[in-house]
Amino acid sequence: MNLIKQLIIIDAQSDTPVYIQISNGFIQHIRQGRFKKGLKLPGSRKIATLLQVNRMTVVAALNELDAQGWIETLPRKGTFIKKILPLLTPGKITEETRVFTIADKTGFQYDEKRIIPIELSDFPPTDKLIFNDGFPDVRIAPTEQLIKTMRRLSKLAFQKKYLMYGGAQGTIMLRETLSAFLNETRGLPSSSENILITRGAQMGLYLAASIILKPGDVVIAGSPGYAAANLTFRQLGAKVIHLPVDDKGINIDTLEEICQRQKIKMVYVIPHHHNPTTVTLSSERRIRLLALAAKYKFAIIEDDYDYDFHYSSKPIMPMASLDRNGHVIYIGTFTKTLAPAIRFGFIVAPASFIRSATHLRKSIDTQGDSLMENAIAELYKDGTMARHIKKSVNLYRERRDHLCKLLQTELGKHLSFDIPAGGMSVWTKFHKADLSIVAQRALKNGLIIRNGKDYDTDKVKYNSVRLGFASLNFNEQEKAVRILKTCL
Amino acid sequence: MNLIKQLIIIDAQSDTPVYIQISNGFIQHIRQGRFKKGLKLPGSRKIATLLQVNRMTVVAALNELDAQGWIETLPRKGTFIKKILPLLTPGKITEETRVFTIADKTGFQYDEKRIIPIELSDFPPTDKLIFNDGFPDVRIAPTEQLIKTMRRLSKLAFQKKYLMYGGAQGTIMLRETLSAFLNETRGLPSSSENILITRGAQMGLYLAASIILKPGDVVIAGSPGYAAANLTFRQLGAKVIHLPVDDKGINIDTLEEICQRQKIKMVYVIPHHHNPTTVTLSSERRIRLLALAAKYKFAIIEDDYDYDFHYSSKPIMPMASLDRNGHVIYIGTFTKTLAPAIRFGFIVAPASFIRSATHLRKSIDTQGDSLMENAIAELYKDGTMARHIKKSVNLYRERRDHLCKLLQTELGKHLSFDIPAGGMSVWTKFHKADLSIVAQRALKNGLIIRNGKDYDTDKVKYNSVRLGFASLNFNEQEKAVRILKTCL
Repeated sequence: MNLIKQLIIIDAQSDTPVYIQISNGFIQHIRQGRFKKGLKLPGSRKIATLLQVNRMTVVAALNELDAQGWIETLPRKGTFIKKILPLLTPGKITEETRVFTIADKTGFQYDEKRIIPIELSDFPPTDKLIFNDGFPDVRIAPTEQLIKTMRRLSKLAFQKKYLMYGGAQGTIMLRETLSAFLNETRGLPSSSENILITRGAQMGLYLAASIILKPGDVVIAGSPGYAAANLTFRQLGAKVIHLPVDDKGINIDTLEEICQRQKIKMVYVIPHHHNPTTVTLSSERRIRLLALAAKYKFAIIEDDYDYDFHYSSKPIMPMASLDRNGHVIYIGTFTKTLAPAIRFGFIVAPASFIRSATHLRKSIDTQGDSLMENAIAELYKDGTMARHIKKSVNLYRERRDHLCKLLQTELGKHLSFDIPAGGMSVWTKFHKADLSIVAQRALKNGLIIRNGKDYDTDKVKYNSVRLGFASLNFNEQEKAVRILKTCL
Repeated sequence: MNLIKQLIIIDAQSDTPVYIQISNGFIQHIRQGRFKKGLKLPGSRKIATLLQVNRMTVVAALNELDAQGWIETLPRKGTFIKKILPLLTPGKITEETRVFTIADKTGFQYDEKRIIPIELSDFPPTDKLIFNDGFPDVRIAPTEQLIKTMRRLSKLAFQKKYLMYGGAQGTIMLRETLSAFLNETRGLPSSSENILITRGAQMGLYLAASIILKPGDVVIAGSPGYAAANLTFRQLGAKVIHLPVDDKGINIDTLEEICQRQKIKMVYVIPHHHNPTTVTLSSERRIRLLALAAKYKFAIIEDDYDYDFHYSSKPIMPMASLDRNGHVIYIGTFTKTLAPAIRFGFIVAPASFIRSATHLRKSIDTQGDSLMENAIAELYKDGTMARHIKKSVNLYRERRDHLCKLLQTELGKHLSFDIPAGGMSVWTKFHKADLSIVAQRALKNGLIIRNGKDYDTDKVKYNSVRLGFASLNFNEQEKAVRILKTCL
């Protein structure tokens, strides 16, 4: 077996992994007849000693040779060079010839059905117009200021520690800044211990629901409603009961009837600009909902992700601002202000609940990106965020008005909608045209629009779609409506 | 009730929230006797109409007045100005006088015990020396390059879409770059569909364990072992069985005995530099562990967070590189290379498993910070990461040698340790001195060191501590050892 030692040369400086060098060496010498067909190879331990490499490396090389069909292992006999060799055009053995890959399926059993599939979107194409679900215009996102601030902070010696572990609840600087901001703008009587910094509203939802719900618990949510939230509740094993939503929000009379019949654990509500219908929960209903929570001892998840983007008048105070009994878990986000892929948000809740949520959060991903948290705090403190929100609100209000006018004048007979008081999309019902066909036609003409089935149930077909206006300028809106018109 | 309309003046331009203006107005006029003690107030709806504000705002103002003790609500009678008013020194009513705060406890029931408390560390103090658990030196972290790259990318028009929603699995650019890097350096035969970008190794652990484990399932982990992992498994309801760890890693003979007796679902293993003892799992044991996994059909979580930091020889190939049957879920991280609070890591696994993990991840926090993912990919492509790893390894090797020499020469008779082949800490056993007392004394002298109880069980008291050397330069190490010496 000295032959192996003589023939297989390993170049420790090479970029090619050692195990590939070994398998390539074998292949070369098998082809050239130096290793004969049918030759029995020594064990991996022996080869490792001969070549003075780690045994794992030899096993990997043999695995590769086996996968490529050069060797075979016969039970209780050993490993042999195959008598019938694979047909390969002669030439350099490159990495591309490697065939050993990770298995497609796992070799162990797990309950695949416990993980509910979620629609996985790709990043939006840049060569098409898109009526998205109501997302901000990332072209105006204050990323430049954020990154500049990060850079400035990262150079300060005392900020270096924020690159270390610590602060699973979020940095004290961001929590104090946010607490003051929420006190002032939303009347939320919070202190820094009432706040957990999350990754967007979605992590707030996941954490809060994980803590409150046990499998089999009942959650109430509006219908039509926000799919991602419902899916998270179901992922956690909860049962979702749907409440009708009208122009004042979820129906509280129906909720009360349900409470009289059965134990409910949690009510999920989007107080501003309900997804998908964009309605705002009225003051009267907020007050009644709080009273019901106190009476029936359920939790309210108040997902106020869209508070900052109200156009007609001042937004309505959060229920959390009135809740003296600890029923409301308030969720907010910076993603609509900064950008969807810069994922920061927050939960405001009783301090004991925040501690539980922090413990769970640490188990999930340890902590947030602390230096960036401090950079966001800086943007709040120096007024950048307030200015950006104001600028965005003005811009999006104009874009809302422009799109609504376009839809009315150009497509008025095909569809109907209410002008939304806030948010970033118009909930639009198409009368006759089947939206799934319209969407197909539109795509061919360079416009992406959803097929109108997202909120359908067995009983109701909405044939409606959220037409996001915030991320389209006037020109783009006009083009998009023009394309839509040709598809009707 | 025209009095209310006359006396309560709202300044829409003021920074003070409207509800605070209203409550302050009431207090001022109650004090000055314009609103008499015992006066019955109209309902919130009526006041809202009189003041032309939202009813929620009025309810918030009344809440505040109630919390401060100015008004009281009598059941079935109404709300009245109190006959006995709170004693307050006269003066301007400022925001500081607000007493209405969020409740400490929730008003709904949830099973608090389901969330296991985790030690919540704060950021490290900058005025003390710290023997941490083995963390990188963030002073040399390539944050400057990362932030610069982010800034450059954020200005490119086609990169703007990476600020939008999309790519819950991680950007294709980072997954392809990482796949090539792992193929080349670790012999991991992955493609981009085998990779999920996570938030550090911790999220990899949480996702993988969530998918594999059901409550009651059995997990095997080394003892002494990594506390955060064990806690996550217990958080998910699994039962953790501990395997002894010696100088070659976890004991595979014991594992086989357990497998013969009962069904195990998963083995958790740190192949390089086991936490806390820093040993590397030997090739022999890796091969046997893989064979056992195939025989008993369990999953292996291979948490190779420390692969890049091996000093003595080349690191050993991952088991994932040899696994042809889909038993290994491989976890890695960038946090040790970039910085702990820049949270990026990855899972490598069969494509079907990665899809499940991506669905769950989307439910937890939607997606990663995509622009930063692309920036990290750039740092890999332009060689920055490879250079930084090489530089860190050289630096940390020197620091390891320096600390080991110091410990030997200065404290040799008090403690014992093996020189670690990799990682960022020395697992040090103290002979006689009680570490909990040493830690207290050290703190008084400006040195933070753990109390040696972290890994204790009912049966074993280790009186050992991980002395992190990577984040201390020679000078700091010398100071730290000097302080330690005075405490023994």
